Amino acid sequence: MLGALMPSVEGGEARLIEAMRYATLGGGKRLRGFLVMEVAALFDAEPEGALRAAASAEMLHAYSLVHDDLPAMDDDDLRRGQPSTHIKFDEATAILAGDALQTLAFATIADPATHPDAEARIALVVALADASGAAGMVGGQMIDMEGEGHALPLAAIERLHALKTGRLIRYSAEAGAILGRAGPEVRDRVAAYGRDLGAAFQVADDVLDATASAEELGKTAGKDAEAGKSTFVALLGIDGARAEAERLARQATKALAGFGAEADGLRALARYVVERRN
Amino acid sequence: MLGALMPSVEGGEARLIEAMRYATLGGGKRLRGFLVMEVAALFDAEPEGALRAAASAEMLHAYSLVHDDLPAMDDDDLRRGQPSTHIKFDEATAILAGDALQTLAFATIADPATHPDAEARIALVVALADASGAAGMVGGQMIDMEGEGHALPLAAIERLHALKTGRLIRYSAEAGAILGRAGPEVRDRVAAYGRDLGAAFQVADDVLDATASAEELGKTAGKDAEAGKSTFVALLGIDGARAEAERLARQATKALAGFGAEADGLRALARYVVERRN
Repeated sequence: MLGALMPSVEGGEARLIEAMRYATLGGGKRLRGFLVMEVAALFDAEPEGALRAAASAEMLHAYSLVHDDLPAMDDDDLRRGQPSTHIKFDEATAILAGDALQTLAFATIADPATHPDAEARIALVVALADASGAAGMVGGQMIDMEGEGHALPLAAIERLHALKTGRLIRYSAEAGAILGRAGPEVRDRVAAYGRDLGAAFQVADDVLDATASAEELGKTAGKDAEAGKSTFVALLGIDGARAEAERLARQATKALAGFGAEADGLRALARYVVERRN
Repeated sequence: MLGALMPSVEGGEARLIEAMRYATLGGGKRLRGFLVMEVAALFDAEPEGALRAAASAEMLHAYSLVHDDLPAMDDDDLRRGQPSTHIKFDEATAILAGDALQTLAFATIADPATHPDAEARIALVVALADASGAAGMVGGQMIDMEGEGHALPLAAIERLHALKTGRLIRYSAEAGAILGRAGPEVRDRVAAYGRDLGAAFQVADDVLDATASAEELGKTAGKDAEAGKSTFVALLGIDGARAEAERLARQATKALAGFGAEADGLRALARYVVERRN
């Protein structure tokens, strides 16, 4: 589905589209897309619309990785065990591919094929914009860049990651509820699950960055500490950070208390994000 | 209005938001915003919604300039007579400010304050995504980068600019018609005006780049020829390019034949784009 939504390769912009495909289709955990699908299934939303919303989350995530890896940003040559997009292509192509992937994420959810109801589609657009802009992912990345070389307090690190990673994971959960036309109270519970899941994911990521090898991670290990970025591990220690990730995963699961066995996939996902090895 | 739509400056992301304001509020002709307002007035659309759609076009335009000026792209230190955003701030901040401005453009039109009808708002989102992605502005910039150092034929240059500049100018015209809930036939005529206006604007821009001083332009003059980019002036000569710009402006005006004196502002705009000195 993600591949089918990419424009075909032709004309002078062929290189751009190759780079968009490279950045998006090169593997990865697909956590965000999986989360959209699981929540959408909970509300019996149409699978085609769910696949499109899942693709929007993965496109936005891929764009953010392409831009974060640029030399002027985190300067990372390796991503998912492969050369980063600006290494495989060049910097200009990587900047433009990221730009076009952001647009494509919005185009994909705005399309009538995602949901027959314009209200649902515009709600997805608003939620994605909330997650990705200055008050979301991009704002978080800016705080992350600004924080290099400074010791940030725990509350500041939590806020940084809630913006940089957490908002898009929360969007992924909310998108499924929007597609299923869940009421505001149920949508809030799903959003709370997504928020806590995203926080657990990020703390677990810090633990992995400090303990796993580059081969296991498919990206440069120990990079955050080396760049002088404050991490949960630096503040809490490895055992303390592991315990915090587990606490957050339990908190995420609590938000699902109102659901029955149909939410077991989401409960398993909360365990997965703290137990994974990459 | 454009200023009021920018987030306020606080927290670790203050620098990001300063850069977004710098890129957007530093002057410029506001051609795209003016065009939205003129067309919206033609259809008696609400001024607040029109101002928001106008802001979306200016934000998208500003983001494209910030990214195009980056060292990996056109490497331009001067914009509107001031230091480019990556010179005033730094490259990472400029990349992120452009990213967040794209998001803010979508957020601005998706907001209920733009139009009470979700169908109208989603139509704006679809039109903006069409104008800005791989099949629009970003695709055009990619073709432009790829074309450096090659002599492109006239048809290829026309297509390049129709994507890179023309699509967003056409969006600006269409947005006014969407806000005024114009029918498809009228919307098509307005889009045709926007398309030809954008083409006239770009040919006139090539003439200015070849004839005006940097002081008049507020940006580096003669830059395109120096970078080995194919231009209308290189292919048609200065007089030939001037005549082509005037032909396109007349063609744009013809698309307005069905309107009366209420479209005189748009007719004047078509003359302005070929007669301007910056």
